[in-house]
Amino acid sequence: MDHVEQSHPFDKATQLTGEAGEYKGHTSEDYANMVGPFGGVTAATLLKSAMKHPDCQGEPLSLTVNYAAPLSDGEFDIKADPVRTNRSTQHWIIQLFQKNEVMLTCTAVFANRRKTWSILEAPFPSVPAAKEIPSMPTMGLPAWVGSYDIRTVQGELSILSDKTPEELDNSVTLQWIQDNPKRNLDFLSLTAICDAFFPRIYIRRKEMVPIGTVSLTVYFHVDSETLNQHGDQEVLGHARALRFNDGFFDQTGEIWTPGGKLLATTSQIVYYRK
Amino acid sequence: MDHVEQSHPFDKATQLTGEAGEYKGHTSEDYANMVGPFGGVTAATLLKSAMKHPDCQGEPLSLTVNYAAPLSDGEFDIKADPVRTNRSTQHWIIQLFQKNEVMLTCTAVFANRRKTWSILEAPFPSVPAAKEIPSMPTMGLPAWVGSYDIRTVQGELSILSDKTPEELDNSVTLQWIQDNPKRNLDFLSLTAICDAFFPRIYIRRKEMVPIGTVSLTVYFHVDSETLNQHGDQEVLGHARALRFNDGFFDQTGEIWTPGGKLLATTSQIVYYRK
Repeated sequence: MDHVEQSHPFDKATQLTGEAGEYKGHTSEDYANMVGPFGGVTAATLLKSAMKHPDCQGEPLSLTVNYAAPLSDGEFDIKADPVRTNRSTQHWIIQLFQKNEVMLTCTAVFANRRKTWSILEAPFPSVPAAKEIPSMPTMGLPAWVGSYDIRTVQGELSILSDKTPEELDNSVTLQWIQDNPKRNLDFLSLTAICDAFFPRIYIRRKEMVPIGTVSLTVYFHVDSETLNQHGDQEVLGHARALRFNDGFFDQTGEIWTPGGKLLATTSQIVYYRK
Repeated sequence: MDHVEQSHPFDKATQLTGEAGEYKGHTSEDYANMVGPFGGVTAATLLKSAMKHPDCQGEPLSLTVNYAAPLSDGEFDIKADPVRTNRSTQHWIIQLFQKNEVMLTCTAVFANRRKTWSILEAPFPSVPAAKEIPSMPTMGLPAWVGSYDIRTVQGELSILSDKTPEELDNSVTLQWIQDNPKRNLDFLSLTAICDAFFPRIYIRRKEMVPIGTVSLTVYFHVDSETLNQHGDQEVLGHARALRFNDGFFDQTGEIWTPGGKLLATTSQIVYYRK
């Protein structure tokens, strides 16, 4: 798996003890959200539970995490089960519990890649380099935001901007993002970064309303070797919503290297109350 | 749930017997694929197993189906488990077995919608009406294709076209599609239609290679009342790939009514050998 434990708040936040698919973890103050932990780190922790399993084969290909109930700060239990192992793919069902109640459900697929005909179809967005954009201020925001360095090219949190009108005509965000402090990118941090877009409704409208991700999916387009080469550079996140309807909106996004490699595509459906 | 059993090959294909989350089903010749059944109908059958459960609450919001092994034609067993029921959402883990082996894993979320601020962000594609486009020929193609009336606006199966070069510069498809014979749209047929795009690699390249969907996700943007109003009209499918890399490509898509309502967004990651 080539996964080297690094000494970083993110590694502490995703730390698991236990063995053979039965693990214990703990939420982290560094990644606290408005209520409970930042869902991206929880998703990464679920992925880690499969990667840590002695029977794990291949590298992450897809991950779906369903947020069944708001996590409380504190301990949790994870059960990770490799329900089907083929020659080149492995299928996982993973659940996270607090006080014996199911808090998250998850499926993951691991796979081995083979060099073959490949092509990038999506165009790399035209954006200024990260160093030309100021880092967003994080004061007054939940702790997890301060665990990232986010440089917003387009589509910032509307309430933070004097210039933004009450309602924008789109919810597109383009943001440079990297761990703060810096950390080498791996499948776990890439997973969390897929969920590190602010809720699309906060881009589109200048009003804070209760929201919660219901389901998050990540497709990984690269192997660990490519991630290792990336090191601790920033990545570009690009996200948009297609429809907000009667309490639920979707988000589709892509994560790119500065050099134009597409690392992951991601989607989620989010509850909102208004 | 407002789901009325209809007399149609699709209803036979997704028929389940059994009770309380333990069901038996059977693949259908009408929806046969190259090997085994069309994955869209299998996904619909998994969704149906939750909808048929006496404890089911709410309407489908999201569905993820992971294809762990190629299904054989014949009988299968489904186990559908509502692992968490909240006031307004319900979370399911569903598995499909053949000969006691896990063939598919699935998670689904059901929810109740409440009327609130809503907006469509995605633009409805500019396309000719379905009646202005000829139905694609289905002779020589797997049976499931004949169970749909598909009218391709853009991005047809490359091997069917004399005009298509060896490789296109994109894999975008726009297609009108409806059940053949006609059938009133519901969550089940909408799920199957989300998987009824030809594999993006067959659009991009004029060559048949082995492929298989690994994971499929559907987000539903409407309730059953809206689907009932739609009746048996056609829908517009729009799909594209972002990256083909070392044996796996993604697909992102949307399903629209002719009047411009966004019914569902969908994504999948697909294995290919080349």
